[in-house]
Amino acid sequence: MIITKSRRTSTFMTAEIKVGIVGYGNVGMGVEAAISNNPDMKLTAVFTRRDPTALKVRTPGVAIYPESQAQRHVDALDVVILCGGSATDLPEQGPRFAALFNTVDSYDTHAKIPEYFKALDRAAKKAKKTCVISTGWDPGLFSLLRVIEEAVLPDGKGYTFWGPGVSQGHSDAARRIEGVADARQYTIPIEGAIEKVRSGSAPELSTREKHLRDCYVVAAKDADRERIRREIATMPNYFADYDTKVTFVSEAEMAEKHGKMPHGGFVIRSGGTGQGHRHIVEFSLKLDSNPEFTGNVLVAYARAVARLNKEGQTGAKTVLDIPASYLSMKSPEALRKDYL
Amino acid sequence: MIITKSRRTSTFMTAEIKVGIVGYGNVGMGVEAAISNNPDMKLTAVFTRRDPTALKVRTPGVAIYPESQAQRHVDALDVVILCGGSATDLPEQGPRFAALFNTVDSYDTHAKIPEYFKALDRAAKKAKKTCVISTGWDPGLFSLLRVIEEAVLPDGKGYTFWGPGVSQGHSDAARRIEGVADARQYTIPIEGAIEKVRSGSAPELSTREKHLRDCYVVAAKDADRERIRREIATMPNYFADYDTKVTFVSEAEMAEKHGKMPHGGFVIRSGGTGQGHRHIVEFSLKLDSNPEFTGNVLVAYARAVARLNKEGQTGAKTVLDIPASYLSMKSPEALRKDYL
Repeated sequence: MIITKSRRTSTFMTAEIKVGIVGYGNVGMGVEAAISNNPDMKLTAVFTRRDPTALKVRTPGVAIYPESQAQRHVDALDVVILCGGSATDLPEQGPRFAALFNTVDSYDTHAKIPEYFKALDRAAKKAKKTCVISTGWDPGLFSLLRVIEEAVLPDGKGYTFWGPGVSQGHSDAARRIEGVADARQYTIPIEGAIEKVRSGSAPELSTREKHLRDCYVVAAKDADRERIRREIATMPNYFADYDTKVTFVSEAEMAEKHGKMPHGGFVIRSGGTGQGHRHIVEFSLKLDSNPEFTGNVLVAYARAVARLNKEGQTGAKTVLDIPASYLSMKSPEALRKDYL
Repeated sequence: MIITKSRRTSTFMTAEIKVGIVGYGNVGMGVEAAISNNPDMKLTAVFTRRDPTALKVRTPGVAIYPESQAQRHVDALDVVILCGGSATDLPEQGPRFAALFNTVDSYDTHAKIPEYFKALDRAAKKAKKTCVISTGWDPGLFSLLRVIEEAVLPDGKGYTFWGPGVSQGHSDAARRIEGVADARQYTIPIEGAIEKVRSGSAPELSTREKHLRDCYVVAAKDADRERIRREIATMPNYFADYDTKVTFVSEAEMAEKHGKMPHGGFVIRSGGTGQGHRHIVEFSLKLDSNPEFTGNVLVAYARAVARLNKEGQTGAKTVLDIPASYLSMKSPEALRKDYL
């Protein structure tokens, strides 16, 4: 597949934003697809830890460089999008790239975000660069909506539901069980719980009452299916606190029916004002492809980063620090005229 | 009813934000109710065009002044919230108050927003003040979501549906017909149209296909009901482009069943990425009280205005120019730790 610009529209930024991708996995390819829908952007380079001569990317004319030599290309790029994982890639790549480039990433190890923010803020400020950390949809758009919803309904209660969608972490956990040849786990928000929240009753919901875990497993030949089922359902942290459904499928059925990466979810707040008036604010996503939508969000924040840096606003930022107008291709004047 | 602070929580701003209300109608009272749920704010003054000695406000200890003498109280207030109407009040009050105070308003004459923005920007910059214009929920939160949704799904189509809720403008229009003693008009979004949008089919929808107009009318004694029904249904701009339902009710039924001001709506975008992957992003509000929720939004932006002005960011802004963190009582550090 060759990616070509699908539309040319007039944009606010006069010069094209030159974007680099670090790490060409699912999210990296999602970012590439996203750039093709943003006519003010150009994918200029891909940095990889694989052999650059062996890597094929979809967009024509893109340079492919070893990730270790990124510092040679500092002047060629307005922003790089870090598409590595949060466990081991980003803690090392984040501060290193923030000392060289404007960056955007989707760091999602929640407990370590303050520490990661500090490391990138220090590196970026020193280098007069701008970074947006922890964007995508959660953390990212969902974080933004949690804050907005609470600010406009302070006397209330907020809820986040995830899914229906594939959880990579839970799929991997199931795969580590002996006798499991392949596994795919869907996180399913429980419809009745969402309805209770939407009704304005502000329920207290346990972990088990909010989400169901639905696993599809290819068992190895002669594996003990009852043991696999039990080991999945009782696995601490991942499954024990949930109702978990395990369905055994053939390798063919897994490939045919469970190869997609849908996801989504809901950020809902229910609150009150005055004398017993109730209000529900809800934001939801229904995504066919988690990595491609994540790529789209990363690209919108890449635009913001390029603009913030041009204005001299350096250091680390999150989605909570960035006005919506910075995400748009359109000028503030055009937005005021047509979108307010 | 006496309004007291419902909660005391630790807040980011060290000094309480002193707020003035200009115009004590439905929205003014909504703002007052909202302030009682925001422990970092204090309602300090109400400015009115009525006789100040005759006006009773719910919050104890609030000064009531003639609107015409607002300039005497410039040092006593961190921000004033303009609660007048867009037709005649705000075009005059907006620039006048922006030359004296930090202000927030809900100016909603869409076609004139660029002109109104310029007038307030000029006045506020000269006086080193900060204004947020056109906030509330539409314009306001819905505008914000229209821009965010488009930025993260540029290859797509956006829709705004309003209701179910009372439209003051349409109720007033129906009331002007001869023989109508009272009228209440509900704008109803057509469920089938919303479902089509949610399905990702990106339909073209006519005005008539998106909303229904549902009128409840108290007819004057001996009035010709068929003529009233016809005059409402065929009224240009207001009803002629819609399917309109007219139901005659008694005065008692009107008072009992149609005295509330519910509203709400949906901002939905459907778009694509990659090879035929579809995504739906949806934001919705379900509000028991339109003026009270509007008041809540105005108050969150009043906090932002006070902070922006302290930082020296002066002039006119819209919801599109303001980071979400500025709306929150919590510090950026606390938000990064708990909301990302």
